[in-house]
Amino acid sequence: MADNFRSDAQDRVPARKGELTKMAILEAALAVAARDGLEGVTIGVLADRLGMSKSGVFSHFGSREELLIATLLEYEARFLNAVLRPAILEPRGLLRLKAILGNWFTRLGHETQEGCLYISGGIEYDDRPGAVRDELVRMLTDWEKALARAILMCVETGEMNEEVPVELIVFELYSLALGFHHNARMMQRDNGSVLIRQVFERILNQYQSRPAGI
Amino acid sequence: MADNFRSDAQDRVPARKGELTKMAILEAALAVAARDGLEGVTIGVLADRLGMSKSGVFSHFGSREELLIATLLEYEARFLNAVLRPAILEPRGLLRLKAILGNWFTRLGHETQEGCLYISGGIEYDDRPGAVRDELVRMLTDWEKALARAILMCVETGEMNEEVPVELIVFELYSLALGFHHNARMMQRDNGSVLIRQVFERILNQYQSRPAGI
Repeated sequence: MADNFRSDAQDRVPARKGELTKMAILEAALAVAARDGLEGVTIGVLADRLGMSKSGVFSHFGSREELLIATLLEYEARFLNAVLRPAILEPRGLLRLKAILGNWFTRLGHETQEGCLYISGGIEYDDRPGAVRDELVRMLTDWEKALARAILMCVETGEMNEEVPVELIVFELYSLALGFHHNARMMQRDNGSVLIRQVFERILNQYQSRPAGI
Repeated sequence: MADNFRSDAQDRVPARKGELTKMAILEAALAVAARDGLEGVTIGVLADRLGMSKSGVFSHFGSREELLIATLLEYEARFLNAVLRPAILEPRGLLRLKAILGNWFTRLGHETQEGCLYISGGIEYDDRPGAVRDELVRMLTDWEKALARAILMCVETGEMNEEVPVELIVFELYSLALGFHHNARMMQRDNGSVLIRQVFERILNQYQSRPAGI
């Protein structure tokens, strides 16, 4: 159960032309969202980009809201495929948690040019109620749960002590992701990876179980 | 020198009607920026809001860019007046650092309804080169320097040890501010103050000088 996540688009073999077109639209939507935010993703912009008619795009997604939600789901599938899936090859516990965090921040590092949709969407939609915001909150909550599960596995394996404040660590980790993104994009510094790995080490060391007597 | 900062608008006694009008425009600009981001602050919107002509607003700020920069400077003056100025009444060192952090996060807590311009501006302008972005980076850098100075004073007073990694702590503190903002606005949780104070305590304790032998 704990290891489940949506499978990635790259693994699907599109059976029909309609599916291929839908994937091309989502690919274009992700590129536009990376550059201009979800705000920039409109049926008109995607139609222009793909040389399709608006009604052609519209036939795949019944509304702009549906298009934005599909774009978010595709982003999430790719995020989990890059960050969570490879880490599941590591044994449960500290090695897996470190792999997840390593993959996450490697991905954030690659995304500094275009920006992370979780982060940019979180700012764009924090004051806009509706289905898109609800989907973003669901995605963010699921990601927090995945991090919490990975921390709790370290307690199960005895690598972290039982008093580990899971909610607090998840809050710190997400704060660091936001700080990393800000440091790279707004402050245009390249020292984020070094800084964030130091904080990680400190957080993980702090709660690791010590052999008795030490 | 270290204690210098721009004095707040509230302390100034506007000498002329022109100055009063300029302050009313900035007041309106801050309200619009809080709701819609700097993006929403245009000469037309402010003219509508104040029942002035566009050319009336334009006569106080030669361009939209100049208006945005004046809005940022006014925001900064109020931010420093609320966060840094009262803390300077505390003795240099740990008490002053704790007062600055306490004031900062109290203010962020009040701002969760409208959002902090440092944070929302940082996302809005992270990929838009120009004078507004440059001013925001200058403000953010100055705030980081103010935090760094407050930490270094704790080394001077002997309350923190000399190896304290100032850059890393400033990165962590700013990351926590971003996390707090996200937690309150996007996730609509009210546990941010509790979480952030726990991390603060841990960061400050970690680097505090211990009496010899302990």
